[in-house]
Amino acid sequence: MRIPILKLYNYLLTTIQVELDDQTAIQFQDDLLNKIHETGAIGVVIDLTSVEIIDSYIAKILGDVVNMSELLGAKVVLTGIRPAVALTLIDLGIRLKGVPTALDLEQGIEKLRQELGE
Amino acid sequence: MRIPILKLYNYLLTTIQVELDDQTAIQFQDDLLNKIHETGAIGVVIDLTSVEIIDSYIAKILGDVVNMSELLGAKVVLTGIRPAVALTLIDLGIRLKGVPTALDLEQGIEKLRQELGE
Repeated sequence: MRIPILKLYNYLLTTIQVELDDQTAIQFQDDLLNKIHETGAIGVVIDLTSVEIIDSYIAKILGDVVNMSELLGAKVVLTGIRPAVALTLIDLGIRLKGVPTALDLEQGIEKLRQELGE
Repeated sequence: MRIPILKLYNYLLTTIQVELDDQTAIQFQDDLLNKIHETGAIGVVIDLTSVEIIDSYIAKILGDVVNMSELLGAKVVLTGIRPAVALTLIDLGIRLKGVPTALDLEQGIEKLRQELGE
């Protein structure tokens, strides 16, 4: 299954409303990078509100997505990280360094605007 | 599987990037109506860009979703209807009467703003 990615003006918005398995996460990585390339998006919001569990592999893929997106010229904001997910990330020693975060999609878009000086 | 629904300010945005089977369509109907109720959204954009085939049952559900959403107080705009889908709808004698349509998500949001006088 694939995670839908919405293009809205210069931004891509995506909300992950399933538990990510390895296959879905890799597919998502591919799809998002291709979509950034196709659309020339300058910002991406990845909303994790519905993600309740995360493991080290998925966390690594997310980190990779963020870094690769920035190489393609798109700033990424992660939103809706749940306390349990935050706890797991810290427990696993995984840090998404330098990745801006926000509470929800609206605030994520605000954050992108600030980051991009729009 | 479920179709993600994004809340953005007063609007809900959803993009259907899978072929809709009956089960998914019914689930989508439920999810969207519940989300309108929960969030008090006043507008909904349903983007069908990735839908290549539609049958009479799915078309009926879509029509129902639109009408039910309006009963709940949310205006619906359909976007990205492909020529093949439009052709099928006409061939089947199905008309989504009074439902505003637009080319893509951005134009769908513009249309909502016009419809809602915002």
